[in-house]
Amino acid sequence: MEKKKRTEIAELGEFGLIDRLTHSFAQGNSSTVAGVGDDAAVIAPEEGDVVLCSTDTMFEGVDFDLTYFPLKHLGYKAVTSGVSDILAMNGTPEQITVSLGVSSKLSVEALEDLYEGISFACREQHIDLVGGDTKASMTGLVLGITAIGSAKKEQVVYRSGARKHDLVCITGNLGAAYMGLRLLEREKRVLEDVGHPEPQFDGYEYLLEKYLKPRPRTDIIEALASEGIVPTSMIDLSDGLASDLMQICKASKCGARIYLERIPIAKQTSALAEEMHTDPVVAALNGGQDFELLFTVPLSMQEQVMRLGLVDVIGHITDESTGCFLVTPDGSEIRLKAQGFPEKE
Amino acid sequence: MEKKKRTEIAELGEFGLIDRLTHSFAQGNSSTVAGVGDDAAVIAPEEGDVVLCSTDTMFEGVDFDLTYFPLKHLGYKAVTSGVSDILAMNGTPEQITVSLGVSSKLSVEALEDLYEGISFACREQHIDLVGGDTKASMTGLVLGITAIGSAKKEQVVYRSGARKHDLVCITGNLGAAYMGLRLLEREKRVLEDVGHPEPQFDGYEYLLEKYLKPRPRTDIIEALASEGIVPTSMIDLSDGLASDLMQICKASKCGARIYLERIPIAKQTSALAEEMHTDPVVAALNGGQDFELLFTVPLSMQEQVMRLGLVDVIGHITDESTGCFLVTPDGSEIRLKAQGFPEKE
Repeated sequence: MEKKKRTEIAELGEFGLIDRLTHSFAQGNSSTVAGVGDDAAVIAPEEGDVVLCSTDTMFEGVDFDLTYFPLKHLGYKAVTSGVSDILAMNGTPEQITVSLGVSSKLSVEALEDLYEGISFACREQHIDLVGGDTKASMTGLVLGITAIGSAKKEQVVYRSGARKHDLVCITGNLGAAYMGLRLLEREKRVLEDVGHPEPQFDGYEYLLEKYLKPRPRTDIIEALASEGIVPTSMIDLSDGLASDLMQICKASKCGARIYLERIPIAKQTSALAEEMHTDPVVAALNGGQDFELLFTVPLSMQEQVMRLGLVDVIGHITDESTGCFLVTPDGSEIRLKAQGFPEKE
Repeated sequence: MEKKKRTEIAELGEFGLIDRLTHSFAQGNSSTVAGVGDDAAVIAPEEGDVVLCSTDTMFEGVDFDLTYFPLKHLGYKAVTSGVSDILAMNGTPEQITVSLGVSSKLSVEALEDLYEGISFACREQHIDLVGGDTKASMTGLVLGITAIGSAKKEQVVYRSGARKHDLVCITGNLGAAYMGLRLLEREKRVLEDVGHPEPQFDGYEYLLEKYLKPRPRTDIIEALASEGIVPTSMIDLSDGLASDLMQICKASKCGARIYLERIPIAKQTSALAEEMHTDPVVAALNGGQDFELLFTVPLSMQEQVMRLGLVDVIGHITDESTGCFLVTPDGSEIRLKAQGFPEKE
């Protein structure tokens, strides 16, 4: 194996490092007046637009494990997590800033890998990098993303707009990212015990991609717009279906019923769950990091939503007093909890 | 000493914690449409305004030492560092988001202290808290601030607008924050060796305040506006005069001459520097964290600027080819360096 050149961060200094990491980024959005290289980014929204802004931080050892998380993918995923928050407001993501805390154990080349992932995601999603800071961290890598976007003021979708009888809709499938993480954790444990590592990922590539390189659902926001559908409420699935649905119910002062057999779960998710003697529904409810969208629309829009072909209707909104429940095929109702396994009532 | 109640973060969970920390924050700015509690904050700038956005992260053990940095002050200082970046663009700071990485060694009550400082600064500066996230950190406290503000597009001041013959202006005095840090570090070393700690800060209270609780120079931006002065370039002094002036020169493609005897240094800064056998000018040039403003104005505005009574003119802008120099009273020219002690040429 050819050994890559290793440049120490100290050789470049903070400003040299930022120059090296950001010099290849181009700016393409008309709302970006000024980006990297000043005290603040300057954003000029179109007339009538509001600016959306969201921050997210990822910590090594908590949110990712560098022993199996390639830095390029980490950069990509960080952008997805920021972009996804803007999409969840029914907005168009346009800019990000990246704040890094780096330990000296990482080389400049490693950070270039990270930025290659960020750059790839930015080009793919038409996002401009407009700022950030880089600092030493005493410990692991810390990656902070501030995502900025725009929306027509009257088309912003909040968590608080769900109303009784609205349909609960979901994109893609759930639990795959979590099972991808479980797979990587298992292989890490196995590989620590053997001399010649050869991880066994055959047949589970989709799970790895959902965990390591999730794509934001920009396509959904575009499809909703082209159908003229403005959801009554929306959130991105970062904490798991149970927790995120409860966020909508709390903000909208309502309850919900979702149906177990309608929760979309991918074949690979079910297969690995079976292999690991675990319940794929738990992965879907509590796994998180799927970056799919959960939203509600009025009952009258059922046909329109189904026509998109990208969405599953998994339940409906109820009175606040009735709480949030998962209904199983035999008719049992399980109260949803924000974390951990749901309890039977 | 009465022992304070200690609530573990785990007792509340992430959402409970955020609720408890942010429930008392009120929103007062007309540009704040929606804040904490959704996927992104919603900002509606006035017509013709641009939105300014800046991020900063502070790491325990790198940017602050909790053995002598009270959490309340840390919260205040974090807001100042964000606000200062918006001021440096000639903007009005209006919103912040706060991202926390917290180790379990901190109690909920400790985080409430931190937020009390954030809240105090927000009320004082008329800033709305509009979002953030709270995560576990494996190690120390990490505090990320995203500051958002607004400005008329044509009145944004960049680092890149300085022109030959412009005056180099500075607010307040320099090096005080750095000497405050030196004082705290000295007392920490002393106190580690004795049984009954009684730190010796008499006569240096100003230095401690400049380090622990620096105020952003909002008054300067307001004074400039009321005098109708738009600087040609501006930056806030976070890395030290030498480094920050060189940033302006780099962005503006120019050089500069500043005069040693004109650099404003407070009496306490000089006194402590003498006591510690160090040079107060080095503290001013390289110390950083003063959160004063460094800006340039055309030569023709000299009288107008002096009339403010808040600003010192310390030099002027030159051709790029002549570089950045500090001129001593005996006429020697010392080339400025971004870090470390300046070398004589």
